[in-house]
Formats: sequence, C-alpha cells, structure tokens
Amino acid sequence: MTKKVSIIGGSGYTGGELIRLLLFHPNVEIQQVTSQRYLGKFVHNAHPNLRGQRLIKFTSPDQIQPCDILFLALPHKTAARDIERYTTLAEHVIDLSADFRLRDAAVYKKWYGEDHAAPTWLDRFVYGLPELHREELASAKYISGVGCNATAVNLALYPLAKNQLIDHVVAEVKVGSSEGGNSYSLASHHPERSGAVRSFAPTTHRHQAEMQQELNISQIYFSATAIEMVRGVMCTAHCFLKDDIEEKEVWKLYRKEYKGEPFIRLVKDNTGIYRFPEPKILQGTNYCDIGFAKEKNSKRLVVISAIDNLMKGAAGSAVQSMNVMMGWEEKTALNFPGLHPI
Amino acid sequence: MTKKVSIIGGSGYTGGELIRLLLFHPNVEIQQVTSQRYLGKFVHNAHPNLRGQRLIKFTSPDQIQPCDILFLALPHKTAARDIERYTTLAEHVIDLSADFRLRDAAVYKKWYGEDHAAPTWLDRFVYGLPELHREELASAKYISGVGCNATAVNLALYPLAKNQLIDHVVAEVKVGSSEGGNSYSLASHHPERSGAVRSFAPTTHRHQAEMQQELNISQIYFSATAIEMVRGVMCTAHCFLKDDIEEKEVWKLYRKEYKGEPFIRLVKDNTGIYRFPEPKILQGTNYCDIGFAKEKNSKRLVVISAIDNLMKGAAGSAVQSMNVMMGWEEKTALNFPGLHPI
Amino acid sequence: MTKKVSIIGGSGYTGGELIRLLLFHPNVEIQQVTSQRYLGKFVHNAHPNLRGQRLIKFTSPDQIQPCDILFLALPHKTAARDIERYTTLAEHVIDLSADFRLRDAAVYKKWYGEDHAAPTWLDRFVYGLPELHREELASAKYISGVGCNATAVNLALYPLAKNQLIDHVVAEVKVGSSEGGNSYSLASHHPERSGAVRSFAPTTHRHQAEMQQELNISQIYFSATAIEMVRGVMCTAHCFLKDDIEEKEVWKLYRKEYKGEPFIRLVKDNTGIYRFPEPKILQGTNYCDIGFAKEKNSKRLVVISAIDNLMKGAAGSAVQSMNVMMGWEEKTALNFPGLHPI
Amino acid sequence: MTKKVSIIGGSGYTGGELIRLLLFHPNVEIQQVTSQRYLGKFVHNAHPNLRGQRLIKFTSPDQIQPCDILFLALPHKTAARDIERYTTLAEHVIDLSADFRLRDAAVYKKWYGEDHAAPTWLDRFVYGLPELHREELASAKYISGVGCNATAVNLALYPLAKNQLIDHVVAEVKVGSSEGGNSYSLASHHPERSGAVRSFAPTTHRHQAEMQQELNISQIYFSATAIEMVRGVMCTAHCFLKDDIEEKEVWKLYRKEYKGEPFIRLVKDNTGIYRFPEPKILQGTNYCDIGFAKEKNSKRLVVISAIDNLMKGAAGSAVQSMNVMMGWEEKTALNFPGLHPI
Repeated sequence: MTKKVSIIGGSGYTGGELIRLLLFHPNVEIQQVTSQRYLGKFVHNAHPNLRGQRLIKFTSPDQIQPCDILFLALPHKTAARDIERYTTLAEHVIDLSADFRLRDAAVYKKWYGEDHAAPTWLDRFVYGLPELHREELASAKYISGVGCNATAVNLALYPLAKNQLIDHVVAEVKVGSSEGGNSYSLASHHPERSGAVRSFAPTTHRHQAEMQQELNISQIYFSATAIEMVRGVMCTAHCFLKDDIEEKEVWKLYRKEYKGEPFIRLVKDNTGIYRFPEPKILQGTNYCDIGFAKEKNSKRLVVISAIDNLMKGAAGSAVQSMNVMMGWEEKTALNFPGLHPI
Repeated sequence: MTKKVSIIGGSGYTGGELIRLLLFHPNVEIQQVTSQRYLGKFVHNAHPNLRGQRLIKFTSPDQIQPCDILFLALPHKTAARDIERYTTLAEHVIDLSADFRLRDAAVYKKWYGEDHAAPTWLDRFVYGLPELHREELASAKYISGVGCNATAVNLALYPLAKNQLIDHVVAEVKVGSSEGGNSYSLASHHPERSGAVRSFAPTTHRHQAEMQQELNISQIYFSATAIEMVRGVMCTAHCFLKDDIEEKEVWKLYRKEYKGEPFIRLVKDNTGIYRFPEPKILQGTNYCDIGFAKEKNSKRLVVISAIDNLMKGAAGSAVQSMNVMMGWEEKTALNFPGLHPI
Repeated sequence: MTKKVSIIGGSGYTGGELIRLLLFHPNVEIQQVTSQRYLGKFVHNAHPNLRGQRLIKFTSPDQIQPCDILFLALPHKTAARDIERYTTLAEHVIDLSADFRLRDAAVYKKWYGEDHAAPTWLDRFVYGLPELHREELASAKYISGVGCNATAVNLALYPLAKNQLIDHVVAEVKVGSSEGGNSYSLASHHPERSGAVRSFAPTTHRHQAEMQQELNISQIYFSATAIEMVRGVMCTAHCFLKDDIEEKEVWKLYRKEYKGEPFIRLVKDNTGIYRFPEPKILQGTNYCDIGFAKEKNSKRLVVISAIDNLMKGAAGSAVQSMNVMMGWEEKTALNFPGLHPI
Repeated sequence: MTKKVSIIGGSGYTGGELIRLLLFHPNVEIQQVTSQRYLGKFVHNAHPNLRGQRLIKFTSPDQIQPCDILFLALPHKTAARDIERYTTLAEHVIDLSADFRLRDAAVYKKWYGEDHAAPTWLDRFVYGLPELHREELASAKYISGVGCNATAVNLALYPLAKNQLIDHVVAEVKVGSSEGGNSYSLASHHPERSGAVRSFAPTTHRHQAEMQQELNISQIYFSATAIEMVRGVMCTAHCFLKDDIEEKEVWKLYRKEYKGEPFIRLVKDNTGIYRFPEPKILQGTNYCDIGFAKEKNSKRLVVISAIDNLMKGAAGSAVQSMNVMMGWEEKTALNFPGLHPI
C-alpha cells in the first residue's frame, strides 16, 4: 500500500530532487508540495525537468494536510521553529535542513550563532546517513538530512576514524554552484561565478560540526573551494595516520567497513581516465565513490570521495533513509546509474 | 519472457548509452557486448558510469552468438559490409550507423562519396524514428538509427513539412562535443575545444540527406556550430512559410500532429527562464522539446527544438523503436526525466 | 599633451573595460570615474583585474568636473536625459548606451517604446563604428556607442549590403553572459545559466534597428541565443544573395571593402582548427574576425563573424572611435592580440 | 639597440606565449622560431591569436642562426641533450623545460628516472624566478624556466619558509588543461576532460623537487587536481606553523618579504567576491596573487595563491627573468592587467 508523502518547501533545488525521486518511487504518492514563491504554479515552473510528468500544483504551507511521511526542505532555522506542528501532521518527518543534524545544542549554538529553537527534539532525530546509522534509522520516526560537504568527508574518512587510525586530517572539498541553492546574488552571477576557483571557506565552515560529531575526531581541518561545476562535491582528504599503513591494508579496511553498501563504490584503477572518484559521472545518482593513494615513505594517505551534493548529499540520502525507515528495499527509486560522457 | 540482445561495437559513446538503457530494460537481457579496443576488459572500463552494475566483459566480434535482437553501434560503412552475417545471427537488427538510413542508393553515394555496400538491403530497413514511422516499425525486422542533427531538425519541422507550409528554411544546430564520438584529435583537445563556438559545417552536412528524405522538402539550408557543451543538440529553424500564419494556428498544428507522442513536449512559456527548449535539462532523457516564436508582420516562424544527441538522437530512439517493434510499452527503460539544475 | 577623460557610470562591465583601456592609453589621463553603487570605493573593488594599477576612487556623478573627453557608460535612457549637462562638461562626449545610436526618433520610439528624451541631439552624434563612419568620426564632437550584436552583424554584412547583393538574410548570434551586464537575476544564476543554450530573442531584438540603419537593408531576420560563454558574440549570417556569386568573388569583395582596416581580419582556412572566426581567442581584443562559406548550387552565402562584445562591441570601438576623432593613431591602447589557448 | 631572439620549439603553448610577449617587447626582435611539426607554416597556424601580427614562418631547428638570446621551449630531456650546441649559438640561453631547474643531479635522477644528460651544466643555470633569485639573474647567462605548480606553491610559501615558520604543509593545486601542453589523448578529449575534477597526482608529482629545492623545507605534501579550466593554477597551502601566529603578523611578514615586487599582489578582502586570489582574472598576466586565512585557535594558516600557468608559471617568468638579466625594466612587455569579467 502506497504511503502519502508531502513536501514543505518544494521549490528549491533539494525540493526539486525530492519530487523527482518520489514521483518514480513505487511505494509513495506525492500528496502535496508547498511553495510560497510559486504558489498556484505547477511544479515544472520551478523544476523544468519535470515538465510532462504528473501535474502537481504548489500549495500554500497553510493548507498542508496530514500524511504518512512529511519532508521538510526549508531554509535553515525554519523547520525547528514549527517542528511541533509538523510532527502532528505526519508520523514520519524527514527534515533536510541543518536544524536537527547536531545532537548537542551547545555545538549547534557554537556553529549557528544562536540558541536552538527546539532543543528537546534534537535526540529524537536520527542523522540520515544509512552507512553510519542504518540500525537506528530502521526504527526511527524522525530523520535529519545531511550536509553535502560533511557527507563527502564523513564517508571518505569513516573507516579510518572508526578504527582510530587518524592523527590529523586536512579535508578539502571542491564544490559546485548548486550547493548555494537557488538564491542568486552577484557572487552567483554567471559572468562572475563562471570559471571561478573561489576560496569561499578556507577555514570555519559549519559542516565541520557534522564531521566532528559523526567521525568523533577532533583534529580535522576543513576548507572549501567553489569551482566551475553545477552539481558535485569532491573531497580530497589528506590523512596523516598514526602509523604508516600499506596500501593493501587500506584496501582491506575499506572493503570490510563498506561491505554490502549499495551506494559506496571503491574506485582505484591503475589505468584509464577515471582512476579516482569523479563527481561529474555521479550527477543524478546516489553513489559515493571513494578512492585513495598512499604516499610512499610517509604517513600521508590521500582519500578521495565524490558525490552529487543534491543526491547523496541531500535528497538521495533522505530517500535512502526513508527506505530504511519504512523497511523498503534500500535502493528503491535510486537506481539511476549516471551518465557518461557528460 | 526476456529477449536476448547483443551489441556489436559497444565501447563508443552510443554503445555506452545502449548498454545503460538495456541494463535496466525489464524485457531484455544483455548477452554479449563486443569491442576490439577493450577486448577482455569490463564494460565499466569504457563506461565509468556503469561501475557497480552487472559485470559484463567485452568480447570479440568474432565470438558473437545468435540472439534475439542485435544492435550495431559501429563506425559508418562497417555495418553494411557485414549485414548478411548480422541478419543470420538475429531475427531483429538495429543499426545505429548511417548505413541504412537513406532509402536511395544514389542519394547515399552523393553524400557519403562511394557506392553503398549492400544496396538491396536499403528498403528492408525502417528509419528508427517512431514519431514518423511508428506503423512501419511495428512490423519491422530491421531498423536504422537516426542522425542526431537530423532528428532535431526533422522533429522541429515535421508538422510544417507534412502540411506543406514551408517555402524555405534555414536550420541551424548548436551541438556538443560528444557528437564526434570518442575519437580524439587536436580539434577535441580540451584547451582547444573548451569554450569554442566553431562553425564546423556552415554548409554541406551529411545529415541534410536525412532531412530531405524524411521531410520531403528540398529548400532546406543547414548549418552546424559546435559550442561549449558535451551532450545536446539545439536546433533553431528559421522557417519562411508560404503564408503568414498566426501563432495560435501553429500551436494547433503542433498539438494535433504530436498528440499522444510520449517523448515530444511543446515548450513555449511567457515567463520563467525555460521558455523555450533547452538541451541541458534533457541530458540522459529521450525527450525532444519543441517551441516556436512567430515574427510579427513577417512570414518567418522560428522553431526551436532540443534533444540529447546520444539519446533521442541515437540510443534512445533506437530503444524506443525496439519497443515499438517488439510490441512493448513504448516508454520502457526510457522514463528518466532529466536533471535540474545541471 | 595628454587629454583629461572622465567616465560617468564606471562600475559596470563596459565601464571596467573603458578604464582598463584608458589606463594604458598614452594620450589620456583618467580624471574621474563615477559610480553610485561603489561610491568611495576603489576601482578595483568593482573591477578586480585592475588591482595594483593606478589607485582610483569612484566619485559621485554630482562631483564630476569639466574634462576634455567624457565617456557615458550608463543604463539606457539615462544619458539622453542629461545630455545638455554632459555636453557643457566636455568638448567631446562618447556615449556607450543605446540613446544616441539611432538617427530617427520615430525608429527609436518603435524599438524602445517611448519618445526620445533629446531628439534634437540625435543627428549631432556619429555612430561609433570607424569601419563605416571613419570620416564623420574624424570631425565629430559626439560619438554614440554601438550595439554588440549589431556590430557583429553589421561588420559581417557591410560589404554585401553596400553593394546591394543581399536579397534577404537570417542573422543568428550566439552570445555570452556578460552581454547582460552585471545585474543579476535567477536567469543569470550560475546553476541556471551554466551550460544554457537559451533562445532569449528568437525574434524582435532591439539591435535590429541598428542593423537596418547601418546596412540600409530591410529584409534582415535576426535571432539571438545565449550560450555557455562569458565574453563574445559570434554571428552566423545566412545570406540569400540576389545572384549566385562564386566564393572567390566574395573574397575579392571583402578584401576590397576592408582593405587597410586595422581591426578586421578575414579568417577562412582550409586546414587547422580555427578555420572560421572564433570568439574565444578574441577576448580582450578589438578585432572583428570575418569568414564565410558559399553553398554550392545555391544562392546562400554563410558569413561568420566574431567579436568580444565588451571590446569591439562596446568599449573597444569607443576607444577606437575616440582615437579617430582626436587624430591619434587608431590602434593606440588597442593592440592586445588575445590569448591562445584560453 | 634591440636584441635578436630566437625560439627553439615554438609551436607549443609555452612557445606561443613567448612569441606573443616578445612580439610586443620593445627591446627585442624575433629572428627565428622553429617547429618541426609546423615547418614552413606561419606562426598563426599554430597560434591563431597571432593572426594579423608580424608574419613569421616556422623554420627548421637545423637552420637556427646565432642570436643574442635563445629560448628553448622543448619537451623535457631534449634541451639538455644539445645544450652545448645551443650555448654556442647565443650568449644567453633561457630554457623553459625542466632540464636545468634542479641543481642536484641526484635529485634530478630521483624524480625524472634517469641520469641527467648534461650534469656539469646544472650549476651554470639560475632558476628563473626573480622573486627568489633576482640578484643571481642580474648576472646570469643561462636561465632555467620554472614549473608552473612549483611556482604557485613557492611564491605562496616563500615568506614562511624563509623565516622557518612551517612545521609541515599540505599544498594542493587545482590546475587547468593547458598545463598538459598541446599533446592530445583520450584523457584530454573534450567530452572526458570537460567538467572533470580529476585527481591526477594525489601524491608524487615531479614539481615537488622544485619546491623542496627552492623553499628548503622537507615536510611538504603535494597533491594536484585537474578542474574545468584551461589556464590557471590555484594553490591552497595548508600550513601547520611551528607557532600560532596572529593574522596581522602574517600580513606584516608577506608585506615585508614581497615589498616592491612588481608581480606579487596580496589579495585578502573582507567584502566583495574576489576576496582571495582567483586564477581566472589572471589569464594572460604575469601576476601571482597571494592571500591567506588563519584558523582561530589552531596552528593552521591557509595560504592561497593563483597564477596563469603559461605566464607566471612559464613564459611570463621567463621574460621577466630575461628583463632582469638584460638590465631592462622588469615589467617590460608584461603589463597586461588581465580581463574582467571573463
């Protein structure tokens, strides 16, 4: 029996991806999608790729009806404000904002600059990354989304962090312009943003809090650079290990920790062009590709990961987490393999 | 009961798209994929997006076994040479090269510069564009592929041409770099090709023969310009009509002629950014989007169409044609809606 | 003796190019540059490429002092409103907006939708394209700028139009995102504009008025498509000639009409990659490259031209026109040859 | 009195930049440019931006005549083989390959895999980076070129390294496709290279030898990622300092060490889009822009630098070094400020 899902805040890029995925999900039916900006317009007015699919009109957030699963794709700090109302509307709530990702209200305040609006709700949410929280998700009612940059870093480092092999690590991500959502500014104006290699967060990026929480390591140094790309995050993590480990041991470790993971692919070839993860062929997919290179006579291990920020870094992980929570086949609606060339 | 399909020449870009589509097609099973260059390697060595899907090794063309449907994704002039052999291997043959697109051997010679290698086979093939040949495809055994540029032009102009409304037309396509396949040269070297606006065929492009054949109009002037894009063809067709027709009549005509077409979308909005067809949101899809603008006080009607050259312009139309030929639901394996933003 | 020049409205893209050119012009000294938005800030805050050059602060338009040559780089309709004031400030005024390009106030009203604010000034301005108006410019006091798209078309067609060889012509331009200036919107937001092939003006573009005026032909059909490019205009003009002329006659004609022109290059090679004009290697230069291809057994001649819209299509032509007006060597400050690869 | 210069190997990208710069250099005259591939063709056949400049034909390397200054723009290992011959042809030789960059033949062998062909010549060459070797260059006869990646790193770190402030550093560069020269392959084929974020050297890049030599630090960890860009190198250097230094102290240090440098610009703004160095606005210029961000409560200092790899990273530094060697004004022929927008 199909479940009824609704989306609060469906006109943004993450909302658009959610709609795309849910339209083709056999176990759910989209009941309502809200948008204040596009009120009364069709979903394909905001998401032109959805033209010709099922006709859905954006409704007002005030008109939202009870449903089985409610997705929140709202700006940060908005979901927390009304979380009581949302949880009365649906048994299951999946919030894609940053509001319920951190478990510690003090950490939240440190990174987001103000008190959390609903601190008692923080521990009712499960962080929506099945690779790290599959069991909790299976019995969850409320799921938080994930930060896109955090996800690229967390999945790159998880096997090392879990086994406490890291002394310290410099994680540098290269990101596309869709990460900023659909709010435009001079910074996103095409003549300025095109061809940019912009150090927009050399230090002090909020996603660092999610990395520290999920990896439980403190010596993590993070930087983010925007490059010419629309979709995609690529992480280069320079890990300084406690000990000099051979490359084949690293292989074993990653194989073991990610065994059976439907969306993790280890990518490390000696020939060809795609020897390491490459975000461009992941566009539209839920994969996280991971590779690595060990520097000889050194404790540095370079781990490389790539995701689509709107998919594995947002809507894709959310749908995957929903599948886990609802007991559905985990890959449902997420089997698009990506395109090449692109 | 699933049908066995094999692909001769599966390491090129069109071959890669075919494999991607057929891997997810519920009515077929891929039996063999051949490649001389990648012999013995895995399909994902040529098509990195297919990593983690079913493991298939490229085999030699010599080892090809009988099957139900045989796809040929070979360089031009290669399929025709061995067509007798291929048709003994499979009841159904779908050739994606230019070898069997033209019905008239003399026209073939004019545009391809030499005698056709198998002229008696020309009229056993049906041109693989369901919008124009659905009935013949339903009873076909052999299907030719389509030219990507020709398809963008043909679908843009078909309603006008069928109704003999065109006096003469200038059709100009903007194309991406994947149109040239995966053979590299200085012309495709990234520092040279990047950002190019290259008039590679201001006159005298071979696809013109397919336009004249399918549209049955002679006064068609064609030019092609390569732009910064990997996938996609966008056609701007400046039609000088015999009479000055009002825009709403054009609407009616296109609606009528393309009624019920699963992959034609009329795109003509007065607001928003995506008012006319846009190839970027069609990447990976089988859609042909069509829009138009009528110039006031003039006989010029500008018709705009967009496709993904590797999909609707090649592998997508081939799979759609296969679906028609085999009596399967026409959209099977072709329902990817495309991505936005991208 | 150097002349004092000032620029009203120097924070836009055209203003930035003007400053760049004038900073290195040996015969002029920049006296003032105004900007309301960047008031009190340095020129390099708006134009980061000018960091480390002469330090200039933006001043208020109200504080503008008398000077020898005054450039106006203002939004359309603004220059005309205050033209009386500007002409008292400087003996020479060069206006880069569209306000004084058209000689006929009725034509202006038709295309710009309202009465001209200073119609008596229209015939005091000379259209700032030296290739067509060198003599008038030499004795001019007031110069209008040129439309970037109009310039690509006008220079492509001028030799044909002057000799009345054209029956009708379809001129299609492909343009970069800088053409829209630095005002941002969702349409220019990088995730939307990136990779676009956008038919933003399939019919009815204002620059058509400048083409008709300068070429004195009526049967000109114009369309504009935005592509993935920041700087550059490329025009493909499909000319239907009154008679079928051989290609070598076309050569002779263009050579004769453009003989000695310092910024016109004929580009028509049989080998290599750059056989026809290519806007990317013109970035930062004042060249207009022109090539052509004659269709056999047809009256169609395809003429291709390329310019940098901010240079030959705006600031470059303005400085070139200034050089002519002031009796200076015409190439002064305009000898940058462009980059390759780029 | 102008000096006669010739270029051996002038058809590559670095050779093209050299020609472009030398054509406009008032103190030199280009005598000969050699190319085996383009023998007998014009310089603009290889470098289309130079069309319309002085007509120069490529000659054979065998026909090279004595001159004042000889530039070698040859593949690695070729210059060293014939260095005896070249030094008899000209009093001054500037070699842009990697052959004479390293002073220690053993280090050369370690990184380039074979014995150096002319080890006795190694200490006759001066490393062609004026910021580090101005005095030696002033009295040099022979100058080596610089590695582009090494230059971005060396100039970023020099003030810190000189003052022995670095404990260890992770230097990560993002590079454009022109770094690989004009040799094409599937890896540089546009559909593959376009949009790539390719970890082509996560460890073990040869330029590391130049960094260690010039900075005299051993704890340097280097990685290189190719991104969507034609020209440009951007370095993000994560420096772990021996002590926690305040940001204003870093400012002072960089200001002091680079005082008076004509091509170093410190870029560190609190507002605007271009707060940190950005390679795109450096295209065609000889600038190295440097900025930094200090992480609070941490010993990490992130230093960011950007250059044009073909200019400051190759031909530009070579011409600047020539100017120093010849006693000419150091900025001669290098004053192009770059473009914006681009």
